[in-house]
Amino acid sequence: MDKRKDNRERYERQDNKPFNENQLEGRNAVLEVLKSGRDIDKIIVAKGNVEGTIKRIVAMAAEKKIVVQHVDRNRIDEMSQTKNHQGVIAIVSERNYVEVEDILNIARDKNEDPFVIILDGITDPHNLGAIMRTADAAGAHGIIIPKRRSVGLTATVAKTSAGALEYVPVAKVVNIGNTIDQLKKEGLWIACTDMDGENYFKSNLKGPIAIVIGSEGDGVSRLVKEKCDFTVSIPMKGEISSLNASVAAGLFMYEVVRQRSMK
Amino acid sequence: MDKRKDNRERYERQDNKPFNENQLEGRNAVLEVLKSGRDIDKIIVAKGNVEGTIKRIVAMAAEKKIVVQHVDRNRIDEMSQTKNHQGVIAIVSERNYVEVEDILNIARDKNEDPFVIILDGITDPHNLGAIMRTADAAGAHGIIIPKRRSVGLTATVAKTSAGALEYVPVAKVVNIGNTIDQLKKEGLWIACTDMDGENYFKSNLKGPIAIVIGSEGDGVSRLVKEKCDFTVSIPMKGEISSLNASVAAGLFMYEVVRQRSMK
Repeated sequence: MDKRKDNRERYERQDNKPFNENQLEGRNAVLEVLKSGRDIDKIIVAKGNVEGTIKRIVAMAAEKKIVVQHVDRNRIDEMSQTKNHQGVIAIVSERNYVEVEDILNIARDKNEDPFVIILDGITDPHNLGAIMRTADAAGAHGIIIPKRRSVGLTATVAKTSAGALEYVPVAKVVNIGNTIDQLKKEGLWIACTDMDGENYFKSNLKGPIAIVIGSEGDGVSRLVKEKCDFTVSIPMKGEISSLNASVAAGLFMYEVVRQRSMK
Repeated sequence: MDKRKDNRERYERQDNKPFNENQLEGRNAVLEVLKSGRDIDKIIVAKGNVEGTIKRIVAMAAEKKIVVQHVDRNRIDEMSQTKNHQGVIAIVSERNYVEVEDILNIARDKNEDPFVIILDGITDPHNLGAIMRTADAAGAHGIIIPKRRSVGLTATVAKTSAGALEYVPVAKVVNIGNTIDQLKKEGLWIACTDMDGENYFKSNLKGPIAIVIGSEGDGVSRLVKEKCDFTVSIPMKGEISSLNASVAAGLFMYEVVRQRSMK
């Protein structure tokens, strides 16, 4: 934490973009955060960089199963906030991730049927923040996001979540399909949310459940959809064919709340 | 429209802020848009400006009941995109507003009970856009916003609405309280949404209804709340005490949809 603050104070941001506190730059900063145990969303390395410390960073990342992106040097220059990145940038998480098992244990400890939200590729931090806020209010036990093609727990997510980031556990998994298999073994029903399903008011959403919400642009991916037990839809009466992802997620979550509250 | 495009092409934006196409600058541009019949959200005039054309603009705005804000010269300089504002800026609307009566007529024409959303001071254009998108999907007949302390139909709202701006009629009123009286005379029930009401699943939201959603920071204002027939709340199970405004609005709208779909 203090390291990041120092970093921000030491360098002036050279363009008008907001300073991203989750971005750590330079070999020593990245190496230190790797050693610290703090969760890292990804590490970006300039292509062709064979410097010793960089090699060590890439090896440590592989060991910790952290995503490493190799990008062109001008791309990393563009991303850099300090203009002193030395070929490596780490995007750290605002809060540490949990394991899927931790989320199920929270439900067990509360003696409640598990209620899990799976986000299959939400990329807008405002949506993730709003979804965390609703998940907290709806009493969901946790959120599962994929390691790739998803926004992580950034400062914008923290802000938009209005504090919910501190309370809603988030697990980051390599493969959503495998996680669904794991949840099924634990007795959860997996509900896919898409256009061609049953009216969600009329579907049975009681019992242990995971609700899968698709990405803003493409919805739930085909492979994930095939793993789900059933598909539920929001009835649409108008001219526009989809809702904002955080609004749709809110509707499904509160339908679970409503059905659970019915005797 | 063409005028605005010209304006944009003629001048280069001098800082890194996105160019706001809804902002018209300079005496002639503002005078022309006043004559055009296009809806104007507000006119901003530099304090102490007594130039003849400005006086004429202010008089025309008063006649058309358009909000005029008098601001310090450095404030208007800061707002200016062209740096050639000549002491006056108009914020025009992406789409023309309708009258409250038009919204009720749409319901009548469809032979449906009126279903109206009143937004008591939503200021974030992303929230207004997302609410328009949900209102379209939920089959609401229109949205009512106040003339002051509310975001209007800006380009950001249009974009966030994903096209719903073209389909959902919006009325802009001077006084929400008076509009509520008018809606009551037309037989609508007025539901206030706040923390201390009845669980919205259990409230009767059938029949002709207007749902009042409060502002992001302060909720529904006291005077408006006193005018409402009853108050409904979303049950909150977590640590955070409020939802994102567009998520909350979505939950109330779809509870109306659900109850209307029940026999």
